[in-house]
Amino acid sequence: MMQILEVNLGERSYPIYIGADLLGQPEILHRYISGKQVLWVSNETVAPLYLERAQTMLPDFQQEAVVLPDGEQYKTLEVLGLVFDALLKHRYERNCTLIALGGGVVGDMTGFAAACYQRGVHFIQVPTTLLAQVDSSVGGKTGVNHPLGKNMIGAFYQPRCVLVDTNTLRTLPDRELSAGIAEIVKYGLIRDIPFLGWLEKHMEDLLNRDPKSLTYAILQSCRNKAEIVAEDERENGVRALLNLGHTFGHAIETGLGYGVWLHGEAVAAGMAMAADLSARLGWLSTDQVKRVTDLLLRARLPVQLPASLSGEDFLRLMAVDKKVRDGRLRLILLEDLGVGRIVDNPEPEKLRATLGLR
Amino acid sequence: MMQILEVNLGERSYPIYIGADLLGQPEILHRYISGKQVLWVSNETVAPLYLERAQTMLPDFQQEAVVLPDGEQYKTLEVLGLVFDALLKHRYERNCTLIALGGGVVGDMTGFAAACYQRGVHFIQVPTTLLAQVDSSVGGKTGVNHPLGKNMIGAFYQPRCVLVDTNTLRTLPDRELSAGIAEIVKYGLIRDIPFLGWLEKHMEDLLNRDPKSLTYAILQSCRNKAEIVAEDERENGVRALLNLGHTFGHAIETGLGYGVWLHGEAVAAGMAMAADLSARLGWLSTDQVKRVTDLLLRARLPVQLPASLSGEDFLRLMAVDKKVRDGRLRLILLEDLGVGRIVDNPEPEKLRATLGLR
Repeated sequence: MMQILEVNLGERSYPIYIGADLLGQPEILHRYISGKQVLWVSNETVAPLYLERAQTMLPDFQQEAVVLPDGEQYKTLEVLGLVFDALLKHRYERNCTLIALGGGVVGDMTGFAAACYQRGVHFIQVPTTLLAQVDSSVGGKTGVNHPLGKNMIGAFYQPRCVLVDTNTLRTLPDRELSAGIAEIVKYGLIRDIPFLGWLEKHMEDLLNRDPKSLTYAILQSCRNKAEIVAEDERENGVRALLNLGHTFGHAIETGLGYGVWLHGEAVAAGMAMAADLSARLGWLSTDQVKRVTDLLLRARLPVQLPASLSGEDFLRLMAVDKKVRDGRLRLILLEDLGVGRIVDNPEPEKLRATLGLR
Repeated sequence: MMQILEVNLGERSYPIYIGADLLGQPEILHRYISGKQVLWVSNETVAPLYLERAQTMLPDFQQEAVVLPDGEQYKTLEVLGLVFDALLKHRYERNCTLIALGGGVVGDMTGFAAACYQRGVHFIQVPTTLLAQVDSSVGGKTGVNHPLGKNMIGAFYQPRCVLVDTNTLRTLPDRELSAGIAEIVKYGLIRDIPFLGWLEKHMEDLLNRDPKSLTYAILQSCRNKAEIVAEDERENGVRALLNLGHTFGHAIETGLGYGVWLHGEAVAAGMAMAADLSARLGWLSTDQVKRVTDLLLRARLPVQLPASLSGEDFLRLMAVDKKVRDGRLRLILLEDLGVGRIVDNPEPEKLRATLGLR
């Protein structure tokens, strides 16, 4: 059983294939490669598991592989240089294709490398973590981090296609499975209340890696994200809703140092904080906030700031986030469960209360 | 007297202002800056001459400046990091504007930094070398070099406007003036025979920095380039003609090490080689080749390979150039004076003869 979802972006439209054992179906991949040169980009965790298998799909191509160190802390301009080094060393030409085989970090870096190499070559996403499958591989945001801010250097650049092979989730560590579920819950919270209900019924199925439940959750997540991105590719409006929990979350990641908490974990805590602040603004009831935190806790996700970050540190870190505009702080909050809302400069004393400050 | 030329690229269209003392007319600049934060990017040669003056145009803005080391050898991903460092350190937001004040290297790097910072912010070009004024500030090619190839990492990204203040040419070293003239001659050779005739009449005026002649030559060059770029922004066809002399030239620059020869000098030698090869293919007469080399020599430009590069080295270097496609070597040659032509895989023995090989 394979699902195909189209991301509608005019001439930059592309399909997402979702199903079991897509790495065993080379004919899909072949359709989206035009030249004869393919560079695989993966990381030290994923490459030993899937790279050889993936490469057997393309016997008649020049294939090289760049294996990056694993972790958000390596999502840097410097490590990106390794991809350019390989492309140049092996004389990759303008019509080559880069394929990202790994999680969100690999996908973001490969996409950005493809956007920049010779001012733009093709790329394909083969996300192998749940988080990458439901979030970072959809929508064309690519880039790297800077020591002073996450995803500060990058490009909007769309892949030719995305292959989500759900079999790759079998080897995913539990903690990363939960991190992916955080982004799945997000879609329910910002725009899809029936899906939120489904998640409340099926959380244990997801944690038990039931293939049918995973496929459904991935499809619904990608559909929600694709609809938003099709409406607002470059984040001038509604796309900002996808940042629910992210301004809080980025501050956590920057404050702790990249890679200490997983991105999805930081987003989970951020979503709980957004729900708390929404309640303080009178938009959510206490019961609704509890529904959010209960679901996140069942997914084994954090719902509070890490103890090592003070609320004051946190406020300072949030001020550097990209979502700040002309000195304004822009947050995504919840008008109701299933209804995200962009809020500029929420009342400072309420934000401080959410952070445990007076 | 100010000339305005529009580069027609749909929603990415922008104007080029050409005239004396545009740095004394802040109202032009103001029209194209929307936020309150401006980052100037310049280099160690140009900043002492013009940066302070330029900054007085924007008294009501947050202004910082990044002063890069001067030279093609610093057009690297690593040096680009200095621009990102400054942007993050001073908390530049998504609606900030980067302004390039300098030559082609500063323009290419600033444009690329603007393309990548927060996935794209505004930028403005204030080119201060003749080469940047007639070439690199028009058309949206931005990027940096890699040790294994020139301009291999970059983006197509258009400025909001270009300000060509011809007064800045007063301080330009003679050698750089000549390098700029190389690109001016190129437009005559590939598509504008009347302009080639004008250049043959006015070469000494240009070398003597006659303001009227310089303005005319810059305007005609930008017009030619803008017409080509409007037709083919992403170089799928006719834009390749602008690479006359460049495949040869890039090989010279890579072979000698960036910065030993100026870009325009390498292009001049490359154009002479392209003319020679065109003659060997029967397209130009010996007299026409002499017309080309005579004009370049009058502009005090080289018309031969540097002595330290062997023809064999040279062939190898050309194979890494971006214009290679599926293993084919793509060169721009001259079907006639004023008529450029894209040629894939010219007869190898004729190319070898042009390089002085058997």
